[in-house]
Amino acid sequence: MLFATCRNPSDSQELRELAAQHSSIRILRLDVEHIASIQEAAVSVKEQLQGLGLNLLINNAGRVLDSTIHSESEENMHLLYQTHVVGSLKMGQTFLPLLKKAAQTGSQDSLSCNRAAIINISSTAGSITELFAWQYGHLLSYRCSKAALNMLTRCQGLAFKEEGILCTAIHPGWVQTDMGVSGIYKPPLKKEESVQGMLKLFSTLSEENSGGFYSWEGKALSW
Amino acid sequence: MLFATCRNPSDSQELRELAAQHSSIRILRLDVEHIASIQEAAVSVKEQLQGLGLNLLINNAGRVLDSTIHSESEENMHLLYQTHVVGSLKMGQTFLPLLKKAAQTGSQDSLSCNRAAIINISSTAGSITELFAWQYGHLLSYRCSKAALNMLTRCQGLAFKEEGILCTAIHPGWVQTDMGVSGIYKPPLKKEESVQGMLKLFSTLSEENSGGFYSWEGKALSW
Ligand SMILES: NC(=O)c1ccc[n+]([C@@H]2O[C@H](COP(=O)([O-])OP(=O)(O)OC[C@H]3O[C@@H](n4cnc5c(N)ncnc54)[C@H](OP(=O)(O)O)[C@@H]3O)[C@@H](O)[C@H]2O)c1
Ligand SMILES: NC(=O)c1ccc[n+]([C@@H]2O[C@H](COP(=O)([O-])OP(=O)(O)OC[C@H]3O[C@@H](n4cnc5c(N)ncnc54)[C@H](OP(=O)(O)O)[C@@H]3O)[C@@H](O)[C@H]2O)c1
Repeated sequence: MLFATCRNPSDSQELRELAAQHSSIRILRLDVEHIASIQEAAVSVKEQLQGLGLNLLINNAGRVLDSTIHSESEENMHLLYQTHVVGSLKMGQTFLPLLKKAAQTGSQDSLSCNRAAIINISSTAGSITELFAWQYGHLLSYRCSKAALNMLTRCQGLAFKEEGILCTAIHPGWVQTDMGVSGIYKPPLKKEESVQGMLKLFSTLSEENSGGFYSWEGKALSW
Repeated sequence: MLFATCRNPSDSQELRELAAQHSSIRILRLDVEHIASIQEAAVSVKEQLQGLGLNLLINNAGRVLDSTIHSESEENMHLLYQTHVVGSLKMGQTFLPLLKKAAQTGSQDSLSCNRAAIINISSTAGSITELFAWQYGHLLSYRCSKAALNMLTRCQGLAFKEEGILCTAIHPGWVQTDMGVSGIYKPPLKKEESVQGMLKLFSTLSEENSGGFYSWEGKALSW
């Protein structure tokens, strides 16, 4: 079973077409910025899993708001912190019982996405070392929140190791999505290339990658 | 002139005694969590400087709230983000004109704390690599906000280089302050040792340290 979430299922035409073709896909309403919404989604997932655990939680929700270091506002700083960091933290806390259930019933000896995992979709724009695309925008609210998301991932990796849950941050590449094409430059990667790269990567992730930060191609990235 | 700020000047007995002994010390009310308070402080500093610039801005305000990765709350995540990250960002934005004035009148050829600088007091607890004192507490709200503060410092270093302003993040060591002794362990460093180490370090910081992260002893730290 695969739970695909979005804020407005009725507006998500493409997703509904996909779900019509694949009976394993269940569409769920979820706004990661609201804890009540996260809790509702978790109740529904638990019900549908009928006693089984959840193997893989992907925190992908994200947004970017244009700004310079001179104009960046208090409001937008908190807005993106809520989406990327608080949202991912609360998703992890709320789905933990279901992830633990999967970890306990899976193979007991090592960490993997097949057993139980949290994948946080981060960005090299949030790498303090790399500072990807600085020349295209300061984007303080985005960069600071993604750096904090990397910290969250590292902490989750340490805290959830004993529970058998792998936790890794992934940079999806610079991709031709709504966000990716928001500037004047065309990103090099097609959605399919990024997603296929990440899926391949997921299947290879193990204990040594937990708490780490990797590109969609599996390259280790600097914090 | 040295502006020492605190939230409640009337409660700050020690600071007032110090100011009584040293006429260069001016006490100012400042709550970095409120932009209006930052703006009021900047107006007062500008007035007192009578046309001169400000050489050195130290963002030291900080707090820690105990928590585990399971209990960490939305509210506390935003609270510490406000103090450490949004506060430091807004301090930088608001005092920029006075820092630029100092940068223009100082020696023009290199960056230094004598010319114009922003020092953000960070922590190795906010180093994603080091994760200092993990065994003493998860402290997600503290760690995520200090990692984001490091990102802010790196961005300020790049953005303000052209303006002649040095920007560096400093870990003060594990110090016997109210915060340092809040746990059951006694920190190794006396306040005086930490402060003297940092003052010595300030005098050596140059262009190559801008956007970087150093311990009170001048050791380069990992993000
Ligand atoms: N594209 C790139 O080049 C790039 C590079 C590095 C990292 N990333 C990261 O990759 C992730 C996906 O981004 P994308 O490129 O696919 O961007 P996108 O085209 O703008 O899609 C963002 C997605 O996030 C969802 N979302 C936003 N806020 C949400 C919320 N509060 N609750 C639930 N869902 C929410 C949106 O859902 P709705 O359908 O409900 O609006 C949308 O599907 C993000 O975390 C982004 O930071 C992207
Ligand atoms: N002690 C350590 O071992 C250690 C280690 C690593 C990093 N640090 C960092 O060092 C810095 C100083 O901490 P400390 O150890 O001296 O802690 P402390 O003894 O708790 O002092 C914190 C100071 O921050 C001020 N402050 C808090 N919130 C403020 C706000 N909203 N506006 C203005 N001022 C505010 C307080 O001012 P009031 O007088 O107004 O209350 C107080 O003077 C912090 O950034 C901390 O994160 C400390």
